[in-house]
Amino acid sequence: MNGARALIETLAECGVELCLANPGTSEMHLVQALDQVPRMRSVLALFEGVCTGAADGYGRMTGKPAATLLHLGPGLANGIANLHNARKAGTPIINLVGNHPQFHIGYDAPLTSDIDTLASNFSCWIKSCSTADTLAKDGAEAYTASLRATPGSQGQISTLILGADAAWGDSPGPSIPNGLPSRSRIDNSQAARIAEVLRSGESCVMILEHDAARPESLEQAGKIAAKTGCRIMTGTFPARVDGGAGRIDVERMPYFPEHILASFAEVKHLILVGGQTPASFFAYRTTPSRLVPEGCQVHTLARIEEDALDALNQLAELTGAEKSEARRLQRVDMGLPSGEMSMRNMLQAVAATLPENAIVATDSGPGNAAHPVCQGAAPHSWLSLTGGSIGQGSPVATGAALACPDRRVVALLGDGGAAYTIQSLWTQAREQLNVTTVIFANRKYNILNIEYGRLGVTEVGPIAESLFDIGNPEIDWTRLSESFGVPAAKATTADEFVKLLQKANATPGPFLIQAVY
Amino acid sequence: MNGARALIETLAECGVELCLANPGTSEMHLVQALDQVPRMRSVLALFEGVCTGAADGYGRMTGKPAATLLHLGPGLANGIANLHNARKAGTPIINLVGNHPQFHIGYDAPLTSDIDTLASNFSCWIKSCSTADTLAKDGAEAYTASLRATPGSQGQISTLILGADAAWGDSPGPSIPNGLPSRSRIDNSQAARIAEVLRSGESCVMILEHDAARPESLEQAGKIAAKTGCRIMTGTFPARVDGGAGRIDVERMPYFPEHILASFAEVKHLILVGGQTPASFFAYRTTPSRLVPEGCQVHTLARIEEDALDALNQLAELTGAEKSEARRLQRVDMGLPSGEMSMRNMLQAVAATLPENAIVATDSGPGNAAHPVCQGAAPHSWLSLTGGSIGQGSPVATGAALACPDRRVVALLGDGGAAYTIQSLWTQAREQLNVTTVIFANRKYNILNIEYGRLGVTEVGPIAESLFDIGNPEIDWTRLSESFGVPAAKATTADEFVKLLQKANATPGPFLIQAVY
Repeated sequence: MNGARALIETLAECGVELCLANPGTSEMHLVQALDQVPRMRSVLALFEGVCTGAADGYGRMTGKPAATLLHLGPGLANGIANLHNARKAGTPIINLVGNHPQFHIGYDAPLTSDIDTLASNFSCWIKSCSTADTLAKDGAEAYTASLRATPGSQGQISTLILGADAAWGDSPGPSIPNGLPSRSRIDNSQAARIAEVLRSGESCVMILEHDAARPESLEQAGKIAAKTGCRIMTGTFPARVDGGAGRIDVERMPYFPEHILASFAEVKHLILVGGQTPASFFAYRTTPSRLVPEGCQVHTLARIEEDALDALNQLAELTGAEKSEARRLQRVDMGLPSGEMSMRNMLQAVAATLPENAIVATDSGPGNAAHPVCQGAAPHSWLSLTGGSIGQGSPVATGAALACPDRRVVALLGDGGAAYTIQSLWTQAREQLNVTTVIFANRKYNILNIEYGRLGVTEVGPIAESLFDIGNPEIDWTRLSESFGVPAAKATTADEFVKLLQKANATPGPFLIQAVY
Repeated sequence: MNGARALIETLAECGVELCLANPGTSEMHLVQALDQVPRMRSVLALFEGVCTGAADGYGRMTGKPAATLLHLGPGLANGIANLHNARKAGTPIINLVGNHPQFHIGYDAPLTSDIDTLASNFSCWIKSCSTADTLAKDGAEAYTASLRATPGSQGQISTLILGADAAWGDSPGPSIPNGLPSRSRIDNSQAARIAEVLRSGESCVMILEHDAARPESLEQAGKIAAKTGCRIMTGTFPARVDGGAGRIDVERMPYFPEHILASFAEVKHLILVGGQTPASFFAYRTTPSRLVPEGCQVHTLARIEEDALDALNQLAELTGAEKSEARRLQRVDMGLPSGEMSMRNMLQAVAATLPENAIVATDSGPGNAAHPVCQGAAPHSWLSLTGGSIGQGSPVATGAALACPDRRVVALLGDGGAAYTIQSLWTQAREQLNVTTVIFANRKYNILNIEYGRLGVTEVGPIAESLFDIGNPEIDWTRLSESFGVPAAKATTADEFVKLLQKANATPGPFLIQAVY
C-alpha cells in the first residue's frame, strides 16, 4: 500500500465522507487512492473556490470536516478566499494539497512556490514534511486538529501539503484515528458573575455567536431571555442560525456601525457568548471601530473556543430559567406578492415560498435583507457570508446540498458576488443537487455605491461609476446557468418570480432564477 | 490632496497607464482617485484572477507594469494563481491591495487576515505600513522595484498593501519618479569562455529564456547559431516569443522529461542565456529532475537578472557572427483544411487563418500543439502558460489586447483551463477587445488521463475517470460566452472552423469559437 492509499483510508476511518476535488498531475496517486476507497465520496469542481466553499457549507451543516484536494500553491490560492470565510465561520476542513517531492523543489520547476506561506493565512494546522511513513498518521492528526477548539476558533482548517513521493512511497498502512478533542467548560463562578449582571435590572444584550447560535444553545438563551428580560442577538453574519416558525426569536446585529450603536443606545451590559466585542465591519473616519456605547460594560460568558452550550446551561440553572418559555417566532401568513419586482415583493416571494426545513445560503446582496422577512416563514437553517469575501454563497449552497440531500437549499445571491465562483453551478448539475439559486440581478456593485455616498462623495464621476457598474454588458444569468447544465429562467414580475420559486423548490435538482429588478 | 490621489498621480507620472480593478469598500478612496486621474485607464473585472492575468499579458507585451486594485486578503488571494504565472514570466506588476487601517486590525473584523503572508508567495517587494505621508513615495518605489532585476527574476511583482487611513489621510502630494534600474552586464571574459565552447566543435545547445527569447536577442542568437552551428532553443513555456514567417527559427524545449533528454542525447554543452538548467516540470519516479545527459556540461552566458541582449551582442562579436545570416522561418502555404475536426485539421485552421502580427495566448490544452504549426504562418507573438497554473490564457489575452489594440489576439484554450477564469470574457465584451477565443472542447482534463497512464495505471477506475471528465454535464461554451456579452459559435467541421476563424479575426471586438472534437 502506498502513502496516498493509507492516507485516504485513514481519513475515511476517521469519518471523512466527502472529498471536493480539483486535482492535477502531482495528485495522481491520491486520485488513484480515491478510486480505491469509494466510501469517501469524490466530487469534482471546475474551480478550487467551489471546493473550499462547498467544504465550508458541508462543515456548517454536519459539524464534520470534508476534505479538499488541491493542486500545489496555485490550486490552494484559488481556494483561499472561501477558506477565509470558513475560518471566520469556525468550520472544520482538511485541505490536501499536492506538492513536488522535496528533492524536486530545488529545481524551481514552473509550479514550485512556497505553499506554507499561503496556508498560514487561514490554517491552524499545517504539515508539509510528511513522508510515506508518516502520511497516514499526519492525516489522522489533521482530522483531530480540525475539530480542536483553540483561542479564537471552535473548529479550524488543517492543511496537509504532501509531496508526491509521500503519496507514491511505501506506507506501513492506515493509521488509527485519534480520540476527539473536547471543548473546555467555563467555571461555574464565571456563570454566576453573569447571572448577577442579568439580575441587576439594567439593560442587557447577550450576543450569541458560533456554537452559541446553534439551535440547542438558542433554546437555552431564549429561556434566559424570557426569565431575565435580557435581549438576545446573533452577530451580523453568523455561520449558521436556525430560524423561522417555531424557532427561538433572536435579534440579528445590524451591519453599519451607526446602526449597531443605535441598537445598543440604552444598553448597560453586553454579554459575549462565543463571540467578540462588537466591531465595525470596515473602518470609517467618522465612526469608532469598537461599537460599545459609553457606560456599557462588556462581559464574557464563554469564549469562542469554550463550550457555549454548557455555559448557557449553567446560566439557565443559575437564573432559574430552565422552565421558562422562550419567545418563539410565529408563522406569518404573508400571502403571495403580485405586481412589480420591488425589493419588498421579491423578499416576500422568497419567504412565502420557502420550503419546510430549507437551508438558505446568502452572500452579498439582498440575501441579508431576506432574513428578517423569512423569520415568519417555514423553519430553516440560515448560512451567512462570514468573512466578507463575496463568492461564497453558491459554493456554500453546493456543500450544504451535499451534506443534506433531503433538504432544499435556497441560495440568495447578488449578481456581483455570484460572478466570482459561478462554476459551482456545474457541480450542482453534475451531482443533481437540490439547490434553487436566486440571482438578484441589479447590474451593479450596489454596496459600493452606498459606501461611496457614506464617504460624503455626492457626485459620482464617470470612472467611479463605471467601476460600480456590472450592467455593461448585462450578464445573462439564465444562459450562464444553462451553459453549466442548470435549467434557469428570468422573473420580471413578482407573479413570475413566485411561480418559478414554487416550481424550482418542488422539483428535484438545481434551478436558477434571474430576478430582474 | 489625500494619500490615494497622491499615489495614483505618482504612479501615472511614473508611467503606469492601466489599472485592472476589482475594488471593495476599503478601496473607495482609491476609486475616487482613479476618477480624478483619468490618464490612468481603469478597467473593471468580475474576478481578481482576471485582473492579475491581464496585468501579466499587458506587461509581457509592453515591458511596463500595470496596476491591479484588489480588496484585502481575499481579493489578493483570488489573484494569486495568475500572479504565480506572472512571477514565472518575470512580468512587472504593481498590486494595490486595500486593507483596514492599522487601528482597526486588532478588532479582527470579518475581512481581517494576514495579507503579507499571502503576498510573500509571489512578491519581490512588499510594503504594508504606508501612512498618508509616505504612500506616494512608496508607490514610486513599488514602480521602480517592479522593473528591478534581482537574482532569478528580470521583472517582478510589487505589492503595496495600504490601509484605508493612508488613502484618506492628508498627503504632502505626489512623489517624483525614481530613476529606473539598469540590468547588470556580463563580463567580457565570460562571453569569451562561451565563445571558446562554441568553437570546440562539440554539439552545443543555447537555451534562451526571458529577455534572451525577445526578438532582438533572438536575432543575435540566430546569427551565432548560423556562424557556429550550435542549436538554439527556448524553454518549454516562454513568457513571450515572436515567431512565424520571417522570424528567427528557434527550437522549443519539449514538455515531458524523456523527450527533453532525447533532444539532448548527443549534446555536450548546454549554454544558458537568461534561464535555468533544464528540469522536469513534474517529478516522476522513473525519470530524473535534472535533465542534463551524462557527459554534458552546463554553462551560463547570462543569468536571468543580467542583460541577455548585451551578452548575446558580446558573444556575436567574439564569434564573428555579426554579419552571419540567421536561419529564418519560411511561410508555408498550408492551405485551408476541410472535413472532420481532427487535431491536425484544427491546428492547420488556426495557423492558416492567423492574422499578420497576431498575439497568440495559450494555456493548457492544444494551444501548445499549435505552436510548431504556426511557425510557418503569419508573424506573431506567442504567450505561453509560464507557471503551470491553468486559467491564465483568457486573462493574459485580455491584457495583451488592452496593451496592443491594433493587433488581433487569438486565445487558444483548453476547456478545463478556460473554466477557471472565464469571467475575462465579460471584460473583453465591456472593452470591446479584439480577441478571438478558441475553446478546444474535448470535455476532459486530458493531461490527467495521459499522466495517469504514465504512472503505469492501465485500468482507470470509475472514480478516477469521473475526476478527469468534465463532460458531465457538457459545458455549452457558446451560451457561456454569450451570457458574458461575447458573441460565439460552435464549429463541428474543419470548414466551419475555418469560416468562423476568418470571420472572428476580421471583425472588431471579441468572439468565441467552441471547437468540438
